[in-house]
Amino acid sequence: MGEPVLAESVRYADDGAVEILDRRVYPFEVSWVRCATSEDVAVAIERMVTQSTGPLFAATAGMVLGAREARGDGPQEAAARLRAVGRRLVATRPTNNHIRDAVHAVLSATVGTGGDPGEGPGHDHARLGGDDRPRLTGDGRARLAGDELVAAVEAAARAHEDVYHARNAVLGEHAASLLGDGTRVLTHCWADAFLIAVVRAAQAAGKRLEFVCTETRPYLQGARLTAAALVEMGYRPTLITDGMVAAVLADGLADVALTAADRVTLDGHVINKVGTLGVALAARAFDVPFYVLIDAPDPQTPTAADVVIERRDGDEVLHALGRRTAAEGVTGYYPAFDVTPPHLVTRIVTGSGIHRPDALT
Amino acid sequence: MGEPVLAESVRYADDGAVEILDRRVYPFEVSWVRCATSEDVAVAIERMVTQSTGPLFAATAGMVLGAREARGDGPQEAAARLRAVGRRLVATRPTNNHIRDAVHAVLSATVGTGGDPGEGPGHDHARLGGDDRPRLTGDGRARLAGDELVAAVEAAARAHEDVYHARNAVLGEHAASLLGDGTRVLTHCWADAFLIAVVRAAQAAGKRLEFVCTETRPYLQGARLTAAALVEMGYRPTLITDGMVAAVLADGLADVALTAADRVTLDGHVINKVGTLGVALAARAFDVPFYVLIDAPDPQTPTAADVVIERRDGDEVLHALGRRTAAEGVTGYYPAFDVTPPHLVTRIVTGSGIHRPDALT
Repeated sequence: MGEPVLAESVRYADDGAVEILDRRVYPFEVSWVRCATSEDVAVAIERMVTQSTGPLFAATAGMVLGAREARGDGPQEAAARLRAVGRRLVATRPTNNHIRDAVHAVLSATVGTGGDPGEGPGHDHARLGGDDRPRLTGDGRARLAGDELVAAVEAAARAHEDVYHARNAVLGEHAASLLGDGTRVLTHCWADAFLIAVVRAAQAAGKRLEFVCTETRPYLQGARLTAAALVEMGYRPTLITDGMVAAVLADGLADVALTAADRVTLDGHVINKVGTLGVALAARAFDVPFYVLIDAPDPQTPTAADVVIERRDGDEVLHALGRRTAAEGVTGYYPAFDVTPPHLVTRIVTGSGIHRPDALT
Repeated sequence: MGEPVLAESVRYADDGAVEILDRRVYPFEVSWVRCATSEDVAVAIERMVTQSTGPLFAATAGMVLGAREARGDGPQEAAARLRAVGRRLVATRPTNNHIRDAVHAVLSATVGTGGDPGEGPGHDHARLGGDDRPRLTGDGRARLAGDELVAAVEAAARAHEDVYHARNAVLGEHAASLLGDGTRVLTHCWADAFLIAVVRAAQAAGKRLEFVCTETRPYLQGARLTAAALVEMGYRPTLITDGMVAAVLADGLADVALTAADRVTLDGHVINKVGTLGVALAARAFDVPFYVLIDAPDPQTPTAADVVIERRDGDEVLHALGRRTAAEGVTGYYPAFDVTPPHLVTRIVTGSGIHRPDALT
């Protein structure tokens, strides 16, 4: 199969700057947003240059830039500066915990988190890769500086990414085991590395899959990103508008619904791109299994009340690809995510296996 | 309140041509498509120049043009020609029965239907206005021709429209009686004359309403038509994407869901713009009443299996306002309508009152 462009959407330029694939315009334009500073990375995340799993890799790259920006600092100043960069990155978008976990992983493996609230322990794997990294004297009492700090942050960033990729490949195998040969899969939004891993695992097992993808307004991640990546991987997906999900499932045109999650709570609530709740309701109504993919439930989030649902600028609802779609005089409303209760979820597939939503812990 | 432009969206030019407001671009452009012939009208309906209630008025106007085209014919030729025009108009779009009923009303009041299948008796009101129109010698044995036929068709067309408007005003009063002062109403697509009637009745009763409107992809009737008409009538609607319905209802941001129907079967199935089924599922899940507006159930349609669901060109899903929104290599799928079963419908409001969906007949 082909390798989708989106599989590697954050990269370093020869001069050390970070380049992030602009998912707002892909695949119509293949444009990379250049980030010379950690602040540039934060702004790019806020402006939706990247999304889904993209911010994980943008965050590790932002931390690397932060370490370079601290090259002339002594250990204490460098630690403080790197923690501030981490706070800035975490503050960009509140709902998905990839950024928080990436920042936490890099800080705890290098200068310590300084006990910052909001940067407490995330997934287990945030610490898994730390063994061969520079030893610290203790949390908040780091002694790294200059080139040594840069090298340590680069190693921690890479380790976090490597663990993520490895866990993700396992997730893909688990999820593919739920899909029989010829399964027609309904997707919503862009499940990014999770979906790529599922496809790879299914292809390795010789299973054919078909895809029906929602377009996912207002940013059209389904029409652009999921569709493009699936085409690049050799499929001919069918595209529907977000309002057609119930009709498609009522008419028996998909066998399973499959989405990523931005966060899963310990009690099995699924927080994902707005529209997922409607997919889950329709799947339940028409007896279609609904599977959710996430690397792991969030140990910091016991239940849905503990999640901040990002409200984005309502004007984004009034446009498509930058062009006005709505009459003047209206107000757009844009909750970026919704919450699907566990009773509407068939299984949650993580890097550790296939789980019932009421039996995650 | 202001009079929405969409309230009168089919008109006659000074030279007798029919002009139809182009709903594909309204309100960004106020453009009228000129139809010099009945065939022009049929093509305009097929191409979605008008939709919702619009085709009723386009169809009566098309029949008037057809009568003028038959001005030089003898009675038998004129009758045959007018029936052919009717068949052409009915064939444009299969799911909504406005066109069929309008054609039937005009034919049966003038030259007779000729016993054409598919033009049998529609709603009762299709015959209500006929008393003061030219007497026939019997079905299919009409004696009208020339200017007399044109005048008869014009009178029959106007009568059908007048009955529709009168029945619609009553429908609006019934529906408004279900909405308390301050009710927040979720709409889907564009309920056209039904919605205008509800708003007029609510305003006459001194009730404030608020509106949350889905944008309704792919044609964006909600973002453009519903939003524009509500703004013209003095409201400030909130706009959401089609995928946000469940989140909005889960969060308690609307008190009722209210849509039109393109057709209601005698056993209470609601056929309406695709996405309505998802609205109904979410309304049921979060205990929000779901009200449906239609002038009358269709006596020719016992149940959903008797309805042809129009499948439009899938390419329409791949574009927004004419611009490509989807990656290359995908196939769009566009069922224009979906079927909501009666158990998901709270009440069906018609010109004859407020009905339980299981007690329409």
